[in-house]
Amino acid sequence: MKIARFSSPGSDPRFGIVDDDEVVVLQGDPMFVGFETTDERLPLADVRLLAPVIPRSKVVAVGRNYRAHAEELGNEVPAEPLLFFKPNTSVIGPGEAIVLPPQSEQVDFEGELAVVIGALAKNVTAADAASVIFGYTVANDVTARDLQAKDGQWARAKGFDTFCPIGPVIETEFVVGDQVIGTRVNEQIKQAGSLKDLVHSVPALIEYISAAFTLLPGDVILTGTPAGVGPIVSGDSVEVTVEGIGSLTNPVR
Amino acid sequence: MKIARFSSPGSDPRFGIVDDDEVVVLQGDPMFVGFETTDERLPLADVRLLAPVIPRSKVVAVGRNYRAHAEELGNEVPAEPLLFFKPNTSVIGPGEAIVLPPQSEQVDFEGELAVVIGALAKNVTAADAASVIFGYTVANDVTARDLQAKDGQWARAKGFDTFCPIGPVIETEFVVGDQVIGTRVNEQIKQAGSLKDLVHSVPALIEYISAAFTLLPGDVILTGTPAGVGPIVSGDSVEVTVEGIGSLTNPVR
Repeated sequence: MKIARFSSPGSDPRFGIVDDDEVVVLQGDPMFVGFETTDERLPLADVRLLAPVIPRSKVVAVGRNYRAHAEELGNEVPAEPLLFFKPNTSVIGPGEAIVLPPQSEQVDFEGELAVVIGALAKNVTAADAASVIFGYTVANDVTARDLQAKDGQWARAKGFDTFCPIGPVIETEFVVGDQVIGTRVNEQIKQAGSLKDLVHSVPALIEYISAAFTLLPGDVILTGTPAGVGPIVSGDSVEVTVEGIGSLTNPVR
Repeated sequence: MKIARFSSPGSDPRFGIVDDDEVVVLQGDPMFVGFETTDERLPLADVRLLAPVIPRSKVVAVGRNYRAHAEELGNEVPAEPLLFFKPNTSVIGPGEAIVLPPQSEQVDFEGELAVVIGALAKNVTAADAASVIFGYTVANDVTARDLQAKDGQWARAKGFDTFCPIGPVIETEFVVGDQVIGTRVNEQIKQAGSLKDLVHSVPALIEYISAAFTLLPGDVILTGTPAGVGPIVSGDSVEVTVEGIGSLTNPVR
């Protein structure tokens, strides 16, 4: 199922199941109350999709998790996952603008597969990882490339407001395989990788991350970007697609 | 005023004003509903103090913000504040145990002054910084020193569960001056710095941080540690004191 969080005129944000060109409205947040539907169906074109989840605690992201991307920036693939945080204040939804900060001269897109955690998770083994996954969505790990190098620590370069677009939906039945993960800027293909090239798999990441931090329902893991990253400038439209989940498009200003 | 968050037998966490050896119970979270008191007073000895705030979004921490500490680890003082995040899942309160993770061979204490943000803050100037400060508390920026070097990014080394003790109270009338900031391990003095030696002042930090990230009420800024950091081992008791606020004591196991 494709789960959306959306707003419609005169209504607070709600959750729904996307069914072709309609949204079947759910009774509440399915992560906490299950998938009970209401009788209400809305045309998909009439609602505004929002970030499908706002993490209560954290976005944990992984650096250099595709060999070809590590190499394009002159880095080694780390033996263990390279973790960093993006704050929940950086999260935006589909269609919302990525705002270029005046502190940076070069802001890059990084298309990524994102895992949405659905249960409290501490010391979860790779074998049990599926039990704490609510579903998968698409993310853009927007990065101020110049500040990433200058600061050393990546908190600021990757943590600016609007630097974590996610969406458009959470696919609860997705199974990671050899799906294409791609990014287009103004319709031009920039990244075209395959999920089969993830260095550290999703179960391995959940084992490693949950051995350090308790994951809470709604926390999000960004699994790294394939080769082909590059800059975005004001006026661009950047679209990240994971085959089987959907396309996340954001304007840049 | 010294604001505590506490639990007492049979009651959910509440907030109160510490008045000598008593707690005057407040009607709700003073950050959101103000300082309305109830008629209830409890002996301080009968309540359990909790972390005075759980950040909804983030703990933003600053590295190398005292010259003598930067030098003791062989580092330069950075021209701009060096920022990193600790997740809210690392926050514990006074008396709660710092749990040493099996991944690390050396875990260090770092006593720090912490700023508690009380209002939504974006692009706040240093001159206006006081208007977004709710108060100050004491923190221990617990750090897996070996993993900090090994990982490069500090997210894991500083983000383990229990690695961000804060408390015992939030002092709402504190003014940063030349107060002593000190740490004792098993009663032995390890750090004895002065807040006058902060390289980047609290207003400067708020300007710099809020230029990148929106700060939410309840977010916490750790302002860096003075010289004298060192390891803690199971069985230790570590106490961080900021003159005028209080002492934060945590066992280690």
